[in-house]
Amino acid sequence: MVRWQPNARGRLEEAALELYAENGFDRTTVAEIAERAGLTERTFFRHFADKREVLFSGQDALVDILSKTVVEAPDSLSPLAAVGAGLIAVGAQFDDRHELARRRQQIIDATPALQERELSKLAALADALAAALRARGVPDTAARLGAESGVSVFKVAFEQWLPDDGADLVKIIETVLADLRAVAGGG
Amino acid sequence: MVRWQPNARGRLEEAALELYAENGFDRTTVAEIAERAGLTERTFFRHFADKREVLFSGQDALVDILSKTVVEAPDSLSPLAAVGAGLIAVGAQFDDRHELARRRQQIIDATPALQERELSKLAALADALAAALRARGVPDTAARLGAESGVSVFKVAFEQWLPDDGADLVKIIETVLADLRAVAGGG
Repeated sequence: MVRWQPNARGRLEEAALELYAENGFDRTTVAEIAERAGLTERTFFRHFADKREVLFSGQDALVDILSKTVVEAPDSLSPLAAVGAGLIAVGAQFDDRHELARRRQQIIDATPALQERELSKLAALADALAAALRARGVPDTAARLGAESGVSVFKVAFEQWLPDDGADLVKIIETVLADLRAVAGGG
Repeated sequence: MVRWQPNARGRLEEAALELYAENGFDRTTVAEIAERAGLTERTFFRHFADKREVLFSGQDALVDILSKTVVEAPDSLSPLAAVGAGLIAVGAQFDDRHELARRRQQIIDATPALQERELSKLAALADALAAALRARGVPDTAARLGAESGVSVFKVAFEQWLPDDGADLVKIIETVLADLRAVAGGG
């Protein structure tokens, strides 16, 4: 019998973040996460493939938002401007997640295997972004470069935002995009 | 007694590339690599920390060339032009390594753990490049973006060069740099 569990996913995420911070990612088990959340292991695996995915599954939704925004941006926008529109749509998703994002990053920074996972998620993000640009008719090399540039802007903006209480990620993205235009466009 | 082994490092690299291609990276042992090279395991470990490093140790020398070229580029060069000079210096190192680079990439493409390692080497490359730009007096955000852009250009150029017999990596880097200026500078 499967009972409905109110916000099981959110409770599992919160329990996992607590335990990873207290005991380290490597030493935390799925059984402990489920117990802390007051749920069963079976419920955990209904929501996440493994304990690593608790930290990364949210990124799939962000990739969808990014791709959709880039593909649907007005035809008049340059490739970089379309990427910028996508990044801003993603940035807006973090509006009320500053504290969560910070706790998540601390766990990743403490765990080399998670850092490698994060890099491969960023590479997948660049691939999705390049595909979205190609769907706009941008030639392959320009699409790849626009996508890599977009990921760079997001990484740099995110790192500036993370420690800065009350900062607005969308505004930081806009500033970093302008910096990129100055650096990569000049000379 | 340590005897001098003529070109032990090169023989170990060649033996490793052969065995990784024949049997897969995961199923190859250091003992097999040493045997194929006609050397001992002890000699292997004098040159490489583990069987993975056979594929990655050459990158340290490339990072040194890149950093040095960027730091020492004329003051009159813009950050991106200094990065470009560094990338061209690195590209020139691959002049007679087309076939080796291709064989190496096939092994990495077939092995997910090696792909993650490659991504973390590229992240380290971006860090070194950003440090070189800061040493030129480039402010932090611009240094990070210039570095990430440089890595993007190298990745895209390298992927275009790899399958293209007789292609010149330096020329491809120059073209991709111009593409970046058009994409990231425009709009």
